This record gives sequence, C-alpha cells and structure tokens, in this order.
Amino acid sequence: MEREVSKEERYVKKLTSKSVDFSKWYVEIIRKAELADYAPMKGMMVIRPYGYAVWENIQRLLDERIKAAGHSNAYFPLFIPESFLQKEAEHVEGFAPEVAWVTLGGNEELEERLAVRPTSEAIICSMYSKWIKSWRDLPVLINQWANIVRWEKVTRPFLRTTEFLWQEGHTAHESHEEAKKETLMILSLYKEFVENELAIAVLAGKKSDRERFAGALETYAIEALMSDGKALQMGTSHNLGQHFSKVFNIRFEDREQKLQYVWQTSWGVSTRLVGALIMAHGDDSGLRFPPRVAPIQVIIVPIAVGNWKESVLPQAQEAEKKLRDKGIRAELDERAEFTPGWKFSEWEMRGVPLRIEIGPRDIKAKQVVLVRRDTGQKESCPVNLLDKKVSAVLKDIQDSMLKENVKFQQGNTHEAKSYDELKEVIEKNKGFVKTSWCGRQDCEDKIKEETMATIRVISLEKTEKGAPGECVFCKKKAENLVYFARAY
Amino acid sequence: MEREVSKEERYVKKLTSKSVDFSKWYVEIIRKAELADYAPMKGMMVIRPYGYAVWENIQRLLDERIKAAGHSNAYFPLFIPESFLQKEAEHVEGFAPEVAWVTLGGNEELEERLAVRPTSEAIICSMYSKWIKSWRDLPVLINQWANIVRWEKVTRPFLRTTEFLWQEGHTAHESHEEAKKETLMILSLYKEFVENELAIAVLAGKKSDRERFAGALETYAIEALMSDGKALQMGTSHNLGQHFSKVFNIRFEDREQKLQYVWQTSWGVSTRLVGALIMAHGDDSGLRFPPRVAPIQVIIVPIAVGNWKESVLPQAQEAEKKLRDKGIRAELDERAEFTPGWKFSEWEMRGVPLRIEIGPRDIKAKQVVLVRRDTGQKESCPVNLLDKKVSAVLKDIQDSMLKENVKFQQGNTHEAKSYDELKEVIEKNKGFVKTSWCGRQDCEDKIKEETMATIRVISLEKTEKGAPGECVFCKKKAENLVYFARAY
Repeated sequence: MEREVSKEERYVKKLTSKSVDFSKWYVEIIRKAELADYAPMKGMMVIRPYGYAVWENIQRLLDERIKAAGHSNAYFPLFIPESFLQKEAEHVEGFAPEVAWVTLGGNEELEERLAVRPTSEAIICSMYSKWIKSWRDLPVLINQWANIVRWEKVTRPFLRTTEFLWQEGHTAHESHEEAKKETLMILSLYKEFVENELAIAVLAGKKSDRERFAGALETYAIEALMSDGKALQMGTSHNLGQHFSKVFNIRFEDREQKLQYVWQTSWGVSTRLVGALIMAHGDDSGLRFPPRVAPIQVIIVPIAVGNWKESVLPQAQEAEKKLRDKGIRAELDERAEFTPGWKFSEWEMRGVPLRIEIGPRDIKAKQVVLVRRDTGQKESCPVNLLDKKVSAVLKDIQDSMLKENVKFQQGNTHEAKSYDELKEVIEKNKGFVKTSWCGRQDCEDKIKEETMATIRVISLEKTEKGAPGECVFCKKKAENLVYFARAY
Repeated sequence: MEREVSKEERYVKKLTSKSVDFSKWYVEIIRKAELADYAPMKGMMVIRPYGYAVWENIQRLLDERIKAAGHSNAYFPLFIPESFLQKEAEHVEGFAPEVAWVTLGGNEELEERLAVRPTSEAIICSMYSKWIKSWRDLPVLINQWANIVRWEKVTRPFLRTTEFLWQEGHTAHESHEEAKKETLMILSLYKEFVENELAIAVLAGKKSDRERFAGALETYAIEALMSDGKALQMGTSHNLGQHFSKVFNIRFEDREQKLQYVWQTSWGVSTRLVGALIMAHGDDSGLRFPPRVAPIQVIIVPIAVGNWKESVLPQAQEAEKKLRDKGIRAELDERAEFTPGWKFSEWEMRGVPLRIEIGPRDIKAKQVVLVRRDTGQKESCPVNLLDKKVSAVLKDIQDSMLKENVKFQQGNTHEAKSYDELKEVIEKNKGFVKTSWCGRQDCEDKIKEETMATIRVISLEKTEKGAPGECVFCKKKAENLVYFARAY
C-alpha cells in the first residue's frame, strides 16, 4: 500500500515516450536527469555533475586499461599553429573547415593564427620529432585526456558538440608491423572495455576510405546499435603509417644505424560514450545505467510513514554505511519533502541500477526490499546478507544488460544477398545489414545516396571465411564482407 | 667497489648548481628530468609523462578531499562570450588584457568573439542563474578540472604559462556566513593538502586589495617559500560576495519566500604546484619528490656484474613484484646499456625518494641496500622484511621532508620592527618578513617600489594577538600583521 505511486507523483509520465519520438526522448531525458544542459553558445553543452560522474567512471576504468597496456599520460598544448596543421595535406583538408581560430592574444593580433585543437597529431608529432632520436627511444606510448573543439553545424548533446572531452593515444614504433599490432590491440581493448563496462555489444572492424581519419593509412572502429536501430561509432584506432612522420620529420637511427621514419598510430574515445549509454539502454521510464559506470549504484529509499525518522531512518543509514564500506556507490534519499513514490519514479528516471526500500514492515521482518531497474524484479533480502546480496545482484544486472544488448544486436543484424534486400532491411528493420562489397567507393556512395546507410565496418573475418561472393550493388567480385547501417 | 660512480657516468654534474644560478637550475632540471618541454608556441609547454604523473597524483589526492568535503565535479565550456566576461566590471578589467580570442569558427567570422576561458566565473554564473531557483537548490558545490589560457608576457614552465591546468571550485550559498565558511574551509583544506602531500609548509592568510582576485570581495591564499627565499602563491580561495550573483541575476526564493541573490565562492590550485615541488625540495643533484606524489617511489637497481641476469635480476624482479603488490610505485631499471653508477645518478636527478640496490653480495646475505634520496642515508634490509621496511622508510621520508621544510620556513621568517629592518632582511636574508601595516595601499605600493617585496598574506591571527602596533612604513596605527616577501 505505502508503495503505491499516485498519478501526480509520476512526473516521469511527462517524459516523451522513447518509441514515439526517440530524438525528443533523448534530449529530454538528458535535461530531466540533469546529465547535461545547453550552454548559451550554439552547439556547446555543460556536463552537469550527474553526467560528469558517468564520464569519470569511464575515464577511470579506461585509463587503468590504457596504462596496463604500457601507456603513460601526458599533456600537449590546446593551440596548434596553422602551419603545423597544414603539413599533412589530407589532415588539413579534413579538419580545416571545422577549426575554431584564435587570432588575438591579449590586445595583439597574432602573426600566425592558432587552431584550437580539433585533434592533436600535428602538435604531438612536432614534439616527437624532437624527442625521438634512436630505436632505444621507441616505442613511444603516450595518451592524453583533453578537450577538443570542432566547429560542427548540426549538434546534439554528447553525440556531436562543438567542444567535447576525449582521450587520444599517440604512439610511435620502429616498424610497420608493430604499429599495426598496436592499432589492433587498442581496437580490442576498446571492444572489451565497452562490452564489459558499458554493457554494449560492438562490431569491431575496418573503415572504408570514405570514413578513414584524415591523414591515416587505415582506420579501425567499434560500432554499436542504439535502440532506435541506428549505429553509433564508439571509438576509432588509426594506423597512421609514415604519413605524419615524413612531414614532421620524425626519424630514428635503427638497430643498423640507418635513419628511418617512425611508424605511428592514434586512437580515441570521447564523451560520446555517455550518449551511447543513454541511447543503448534507456527506456520509457528514463535511463538505465549498467552498475559498473552508474554514478549511483544503489539508491536507498526509506518509506516515510509514522515515526519513520526514529524507526526506519537509522536502519536506512546503517544500510548505506554497510554498502559504502564495501565500495558500493550507495546513496540514501532522506528528503522529507518528497513521497517514496515520487522518489521511486525519480531514481528510475535517473537510471540507478538498484533500489532498496526499507519500511516499518521490513524492519519487523529484519529484511529490505530490492528492486532492479533493468527488469523491475522485486525480492526481499535479510538485512544480515545485504552487502553480499547487493554485490551479487549488481553483478547480475551488469551481465544481464550486456546479454540483452548482445541479443538486441544479433536480432537487428540481417544478411542481405541482394540490393533490394539491403534496401528493405534498412527501411523496415533498421539495424546492421551484413553483405558483400567490391571495395569501390562508387558503389558505397550510391548505396548511401539511395538508402542513407553507410559502411560502418569492413569485417575482419574475411580471410577465415574465404571469398565473400559478389558486390551487393554492382555484382562484380566482392572484396569484403561489410556491415551497412544508418548512423549517427 | 661495484657501486663506485665514475666521472663520465655522473652526467648530472652537467647540471647547473642550484646555489649558483637558481633560475637556470630550475629550467635545466625540468628538461633533464623530462618533466616538461617547451612547445613551439611562445609561452606554452608540453607536460611530459614523468611530470604529468606528478600532476595525476596531485589530482587524485586533492580530488578525494574536495569530494569528501561534499563537492561534485562537472564540466563547463572552454569558450566564454565577450559580453559575459564584461558583466562584472572589475573582472573584465582584470582579465581582458590576458585573453586569447576566438574570432573565426570554421570559415565564418563570429558575430561575437569568444574568450578562451581565463577563469570560469562568467560562464558558470550564467548556468547557475538557470539552475538555482529555491533555497532547496542550495548550496551548489561544484568543482571543475580544466585547462586555462592567459596571454602572459613573461612565462616560466609550470609557474606561469600561457596555458595551464587547474581545478576551480564554484559554490553558491544561502547566506554570506555560509560563503565565508566555505572560503575558509577550502583555505585550510589546501593548507592541509600541501603540507601533508607535497611536504611544503605554507602560510595561510588574506590578500590585500592589491592582490585580490578581480571581482572578489575577499581573496585568501596559501603561500610557501621556495629554496631561493622567494615566495610562491600556491592556491587561492575567494569570497565572491554577491558581486557576480547581482550581475548574472542568480536569485533564489529563501525560506521566507523572498527573492535573494546567492552568495558565492571560487577557489583553485594549478600545475604551478609541480613547480613548487621542484623549487621547494630540489638540490644540486636534481629533484627530490616527497613519496606521496612521486611518480616512482622506489627504483630498484640490480648491480650488473658477472652473471647478474641469472643471479641478481630474478631477485630484483621479485622485490619489484612484492612492493607493487603492496601498492608501492616501484620500478626496476633492468637496462643493460647503462652502468649501475649511471643509473644511481639518473634516478637521484629524477628525484625518486628511495633506491634499492641488489648485488651478488646482497643475495648471499639475503638482504638489499636501501638508499634515501632526502638524506643519502644507506642501510641494509633483510629480504623478508622488505615491504614493511620500505613502507616505513617512505613514510619517514615524507615526514622528514615536511619537517625540513617547516624548519626552512621558520628559519627564513623574520620579524621587522622598522622599515630599515624590513629592507635589510629582504635584501640579505630573503624569506618572509612579518611586520605591521596600516592597511593603506599607498604604503604597500611604496614598499614594493623600494624593495620589490609585496604583502603575501595578511595574518588571520590579528584578533587573538590584539593590536599590531604601528605601520612599518608610515608609523600610523597598524591594522594588520602581514607577511612581506619577494615573490614569483
């Protein structure tokens, strides 16, 4: 009875239904849950504490992995002289249209204007050319957590904003072989990270030239399906070859005393991952965070009836302390001005994985009630088993959410043998379409024109499975198995 | 014998002596120890992995404290529209001459130019005016870790660079009382942090109007003495009063349903703290890091004689593992191309607090040799007690370094009863001069003109000790006890 939620309390009802208008739901939930807010400047956002806590969890869990793989963090300048950006022809062509330019410092006009970094290859390469002299200096394995600015025309919180936060790894190696290995190692590190921490299934593969990073030899990416069936690029890893080392003159004396240009990689993921969490897991009641990255893992709601401040509250406080001592991010919502029903609804909307309810009847029974955000499932738990049970349930929620997402991805990946089939799937079912492609940009462009779908990744399975048949568009001999989708 | 250091190995000899030319020593050690390097743009630096690891330790240890005091992190935009910066008259006057301006986005000229944040009050206040409606929304306790740009004319790595990294806290409160309390709470949090983690003694006090933050009601600061006797401002905490809330219209309905302007604070420390660590603790052999913030706490150097790779190396590897398992940042230097003597000298120069030497004789004796960076003291330690001993020695090094620095500060703080005395101390002894001041800027300005010393802090002890006598300069009734020093 006391847990009934009255109509006026369910302010979450005001949330646009996800199935009715996904875009509207997305921007609404971001503001209602206080993940982010629009800044007064076009295309910029403020990441509010609840959203930033998600990013901090992502940072911590990914930074551990990047370091365990041998990299160190460093910090390079925000500004890049225009002449540096122009050294690599493809690079400047790709980024110049998106650059914010500093032209005045104090009251003086600058002799050379400075780009606010749209990515840091140019400034980092200029330093590497000073630091790297011998094979003994290699590999250089550096990562940077930084803010990035790209003057985007169409923006969307977390997915595409004028400024965003990211990490960018920049490595230099003795051989092409080693650089390739690094590029692919990072690709699988990203895949493992996103699947195990964000509970989102990803496809890992290579990008076609059309979507290759400006200046790279090869770009690899991980791609996930959002719950509207559109794909989202979650992270990229670039094999830069010697494109940058040749123009920035990054040379080393090799083991045979010969001067060689280094082989490089770069790779990154950004605050876009917060957008992915929202779009991959959210539902009509709001957000659903996987426990590993949830800002609050457990919300404790005391049932405020009778003399609850004397009877229920101390038990709730004890539960909070017990969980926190175990390293669980638990919080107690003891606000007196809101009803329990209102709180249930609010914390569901904010995506807290597990709710603990404690009422007078529970105290008599020496138990609490656990309610899962992912399934809505309720169960009671004896107070003396609380910390063990909560740890186990959080782990189970994490696993279930990944399983659910894997299933979603599989259910929304279709093979297309013909172009008609491809068009039909893209139009009706959305999701990924697995098909064969000749490797020519011409076919890719035409498919995009007609279906708005692009090649998200070229499968890396090719060699195992043998020849992939004929191109879905031109019917010529296919070179690759690819995944098409409409994408963000 | 095997531990002798030959002359050509001691490349540290090439380091300028600290006592001979402190400035030159400072910039040399930064580059030799690979803490930072000059970027190709004037006044900008690159923080290299070894230097950035110090900053990461500072961040982690300070972030814990800021959060434990109830604050959350968030992220606000890099750019601030010019009109926002202009709202608070004193604020714009103070910062406009140092601003880098973005005037072009992509290929379009911007209608309103954007300041690259020299500090974030203006953009944060514009958001607070949207978020704060009622006393229930207060206090707002937000912190941000971010990069800052100020177009400085004279720069110096870590101490004053065009771009630097910092944290900036921005809080809003119901009453002036609460805002004052927050300002002072942060001041003591900073003091405790710098003393216990950086092992640097600080004076905490108030700034005179001359050095007040542009737009603040009152500025408080912590100040330390560097080993050349000059003072360095280590962190500031500002009571902003209602200066910003009035111009940004940040109002809330108070408990009596009346509209009130909020009371605000802001506070920050920056990568300048890395410079402080170098200047407060370094010596003629190079850096000396306190263990709590040292990137590497223990360096293990195997003595490479005979079949050391079979005999000594496995023991060294085991020691490294044992220490790391205890959470100690230990590293093994197993490079074959350098002699032990060269390595001793290098790691001394890089400031590692404790060196472990393991040679064939040590293995026979089931011991290792520990050498402290702070005192040069050597002692042997049985292998089976290694982890306990190392933890204890690291703690002792930390404590000793703070004691040493407290003693240095005390030994270099002199009281001056007359202006002649003040001038003499500043000229000869350097350090802090404690004296009395009438509170008028006129006297302060003249003292600065003649001695290059400024008021670093106004003592907070005033009320306890009664009236401070007469002003050291004008002989009129003094209002405050103050500390003068020449400063960075």
